[in-house]
Amino acid sequence: MIEDASDVLARIRLADGLAEALQDAAYVQESAAESAEVKRELFEQLDAAAAPEAILGSSTSAIPASVFMGELLHTGRALVAHPVNPPHLIPLVELCPSPWTAPETVRRAAEIMREVGQSPIVLSREIEGFVLNRLQWALLAEAMHLIGEGYCTPADIEAAVTDGLALRWSFIGPLEVGHLNATAGFVGYADGLAEAIARVQQSLRTDYRPDRDTIMQVQEAMSAVTPVARIPDAQLWRDRRIAALRRRRAEDERAMPRPR
Amino acid sequence: MIEDASDVLARIRLADGLAEALQDAAYVQESAAESAEVKRELFEQLDAAAAPEAILGSSTSAIPASVFMGELLHTGRALVAHPVNPPHLIPLVELCPSPWTAPETVRRAAEIMREVGQSPIVLSREIEGFVLNRLQWALLAEAMHLIGEGYCTPADIEAAVTDGLALRWSFIGPLEVGHLNATAGFVGYADGLAEAIARVQQSLRTDYRPDRDTIMQVQEAMSAVTPVARIPDAQLWRDRRIAALRRRRAEDERAMPRPR
Repeated sequence: MIEDASDVLARIRLADGLAEALQDAAYVQESAAESAEVKRELFEQLDAAAAPEAILGSSTSAIPASVFMGELLHTGRALVAHPVNPPHLIPLVELCPSPWTAPETVRRAAEIMREVGQSPIVLSREIEGFVLNRLQWALLAEAMHLIGEGYCTPADIEAAVTDGLALRWSFIGPLEVGHLNATAGFVGYADGLAEAIARVQQSLRTDYRPDRDTIMQVQEAMSAVTPVARIPDAQLWRDRRIAALRRRRAEDERAMPRPR
Repeated sequence: MIEDASDVLARIRLADGLAEALQDAAYVQESAAESAEVKRELFEQLDAAAAPEAILGSSTSAIPASVFMGELLHTGRALVAHPVNPPHLIPLVELCPSPWTAPETVRRAAEIMREVGQSPIVLSREIEGFVLNRLQWALLAEAMHLIGEGYCTPADIEAAVTDGLALRWSFIGPLEVGHLNATAGFVGYADGLAEAIARVQQSLRTDYRPDRDTIMQVQEAMSAVTPVARIPDAQLWRDRRIAALRRRRAEDERAMPRPR
């Protein structure tokens, strides 16, 4: 369903305080600073002020729920609901329960996310960085290793992803890439490349901590593409490109349905 | 430049043997089985039969050039030129010299690749898996860890990439994603998330070797999406989707130029 921006804006209301904001709320999305202290204090206030059946979701991108949801009175209705930047354009939301989150809370949160057009995934239990940032930072860590040890440049990393990996990943995931690369499917891919994958895995440096020179080398390369002063404009550009890509992808999915 | 398929096909010629195939060849792309033995023997034959100034490129996806190019008479003109599947639609090519490859060979190979519309990156020296498969297998290893230890399902991994990471990566790389996520650019992203990234990095399991049950769990999940018998059809579908995506992306790039 496509709506006018003005109709959507008319449903958004700024509140002067928590009590007013939480009145009649069925779902609360906390998006405060990425600090366990800040979130712990805020969740205590949310828990005290919201109706007991309201779901409390946190936007934290890496802090496990148990670190700041343990002391709540109604801890069963709180969970992590990690959106991805820019959250109004990226459909993925990671739902991650704390050890005390009620299964019904996870189920309802996933339902609400699907109702508003998001694409929720549900973790069975806590882990630092959830799924998305673990995958992203595994790739980024090895990228920094390759740059830091001089194997390639920041521009080479960007090309390997935008002109290589992501042309497939934007509509089939990393597992299906393997499934479609072998006549026997994923098991054929995994078996056929087992030795090569194992050798590469042993030399991956996803524990690599880049030094200051390497971080500054990336900063300079990225600033040559987008100067720091132009980042706000580039963020708008990125958002428009993502919106266009999602429209295009939906059209392609309709025009070229997957063979079943 | 867009050409008719029939014009392109008319330039392709099958040869009965190496001598005929290599006559007047300026560039040779070896794409035999992924075996060091097979490639060593074939490169010796290519080296003997091709004109000495012809470049010999290998399609190997993970074997370093020095493993099978060391014994050549003209070893300076041989290098790895790793294409990405499907190679006629993915522009990335990884050029990786052996310790004996002449710099001029790398320069000319990159020029030829750009002339035919490919997007070459150049590694400074050898490393197992080059850039693309190191990045891909770092992400895949952590994905298998999350599935194997029961944190999430294969479908969750696919959604995290297709509905999350790749919506950005299909036109900005992993470094620029960070650059545009912080007002100070990449250095702000790296510093602001340093603690979270370090904690997640320490718990990544990119050395994870999935057991048979985990591989079969992925095989079953992927077969539910694309049955093994439909893989040939799904490969054609994948190829058409990639071709459409590249056209769409080129249109979006013209309609929405990056702010400079």
